Amino acid sequence: MKEIPHLTFDLDTLGVSTGHLVVPKGADCEALSLPVFSLNKGEGPRLLITGGNHGNELEGPIVARRLVEWLPEAQTCGRVIIVPEINPLAVQAWTRNTPIDGKNLNRAFPGRADGTVTERIADAVSRVLLPMADTVFDFHSFGPTWDTPSAIITHPIANADLMAKTLRMAEAFKLPVTLVWEYHDTPGMFDIWAHSQGKVFICPEFGGGTVSTEALAIHEAGVRNALIALGLVEGKAEHPTFRQQKSSQTLETLLSDELRSPARGIFEPRCSMLDEVKQGDLIGVLHSMESLSAGAIDIYAPTTSIVYAIRSGAYVEADEEIVYFARPLKL
Amino acid sequence: MKEIPHLTFDLDTLGVSTGHLVVPKGADCEALSLPVFSLNKGEGPRLLITGGNHGNELEGPIVARRLVEWLPEAQTCGRVIIVPEINPLAVQAWTRNTPIDGKNLNRAFPGRADGTVTERIADAVSRVLLPMADTVFDFHSFGPTWDTPSAIITHPIANADLMAKTLRMAEAFKLPVTLVWEYHDTPGMFDIWAHSQGKVFICPEFGGGTVSTEALAIHEAGVRNALIALGLVEGKAEHPTFRQQKSSQTLETLLSDELRSPARGIFEPRCSMLDEVKQGDLIGVLHSMESLSAGAIDIYAPTTSIVYAIRSGAYVEADEEIVYFARPLKL
Repeated sequence: MKEIPHLTFDLDTLGVSTGHLVVPKGADCEALSLPVFSLNKGEGPRLLITGGNHGNELEGPIVARRLVEWLPEAQTCGRVIIVPEINPLAVQAWTRNTPIDGKNLNRAFPGRADGTVTERIADAVSRVLLPMADTVFDFHSFGPTWDTPSAIITHPIANADLMAKTLRMAEAFKLPVTLVWEYHDTPGMFDIWAHSQGKVFICPEFGGGTVSTEALAIHEAGVRNALIALGLVEGKAEHPTFRQQKSSQTLETLLSDELRSPARGIFEPRCSMLDEVKQGDLIGVLHSMESLSAGAIDIYAPTTSIVYAIRSGAYVEADEEIVYFARPLKL
Repeated sequence: MKEIPHLTFDLDTLGVSTGHLVVPKGADCEALSLPVFSLNKGEGPRLLITGGNHGNELEGPIVARRLVEWLPEAQTCGRVIIVPEINPLAVQAWTRNTPIDGKNLNRAFPGRADGTVTERIADAVSRVLLPMADTVFDFHSFGPTWDTPSAIITHPIANADLMAKTLRMAEAFKLPVTLVWEYHDTPGMFDIWAHSQGKVFICPEFGGGTVSTEALAIHEAGVRNALIALGLVEGKAEHPTFRQQKSSQTLETLLSDELRSPARGIFEPRCSMLDEVKQGDLIGVLHSMESLSAGAIDIYAPTTSIVYAIRSGAYVEADEEIVYFARPLKL
């Protein structure tokens, strides 16, 4: 008999339970067992939290693990399901995509039961976990080679009611930035699939670069604020302190706000996340790998805007993304 | 006729010249051409600067590139040779080791003319460039998954005169930390070979994590201070500002100051670089990837000391380094 994706325990059990989500074996690898935590306090909101969708974004798994520690003391109603690493193969390899099939889990939804391992993970999450939740937090970050603030990102949603609910939920985190991001490469993303199922889907992008204890405290405070807003936890929401400030701003990034490298080489940032730049400001320099006599290529801000994310010093290919700009959201 | 490693231009040319160091082809790949910059102002100190020895430490190549921009205006005497990326194959792959042969260039010195590509690079640098210099700065950093300050590191050197000269040169950078590091894995390192040739060898370890514009300014200020101390550049040395302070400390790390992970899992830092910790303080937590019921492993400081470097949130294998402690250097 063919195995189907399933949980090794019963989510209806009251209180804390832990076990695994089994992703069946396929032609490319054996079955996977993803550790799952469930805290069922009966009636109330139903929340699914996932981390480790991309394997080199460790902020999410760590914040998820911390939640597992303190939630049993704090949660007063409803259900929370936590899967700290939905792609353990990528986490163990510290890679964005799954090493076995080279696929990006966040482009594989809703998945395929008879597909490659990445597609089977997406299928298991879509079939077994997603139906159990009304709201999803899928923890991401910009990864090690970007300079970005801790933020909640949402794509624009055609359904106006779902968009309004999502934006309200996003702002409840009170992270330094809430961003509505018009993005080109969305087919197969977890949020797009969850929206089609009527879910409120929140994508925290917990900054980039070093996963420090100070940064983790900000991310965790944001999640606590969101749990308070959902009514799962009691308490008073507070802005975390970021760069000596306690404030949030809601921004938007349009398709035209993406800046790509004019050539391959080493990118040197000349500005930082959240800098306000004027059209024509020098924001970075691209150094050729082939020659030192060619001179570097100066890169200027195409418009007056805010730097949402900038590549930290990194080798980049031609036409690779190096900066995302943003501007205050007009509603 | 067999090709030998060589420069495509004459280092004796006065003023600025640029060209390439040719690393001959071998069984595993074609010949490489590494861009080289030379500024010859006649009599005076002879300095070789290299970056990109490890391909995922981009601070060095960027600081080296910046030097190429301003040195022609600033250098008053002597000779400086700069190779921003001595391992371009690793830089382009953003990996520590060379992808073609999997070797660590900084364990391959003095290299082999008939070896793999990493060994041929080491051979070319050892034969063609090293003899041209009295002092070497080989730019490194701790890489993206560590939280560390900008520092100069030297291993203990048996020759007391060379040790004293090296420490004096290291402290002239005026970076936040100068560290004498007793390290076990030194065979084949560039510094060990250069010491055997009587050179003063300095290894800047330009921090870890995000390569931000603020961090780069600190590293660059350190190099400018060193060039002033060598007499190559005129000006007044100044401590760069790091965490609102302008100061330096000289520390040492002993073999016993290395802490390794007790198991595989996700490491969560609970302290930061340069924190002073007491014996028994909680400094990190290790989360199992297999189970959420097993509980996390708390990691405590084994002695009262200073945290020199701590893994930022990262997946680690059992017995992998997670913290390096340090203490004030006793001379």
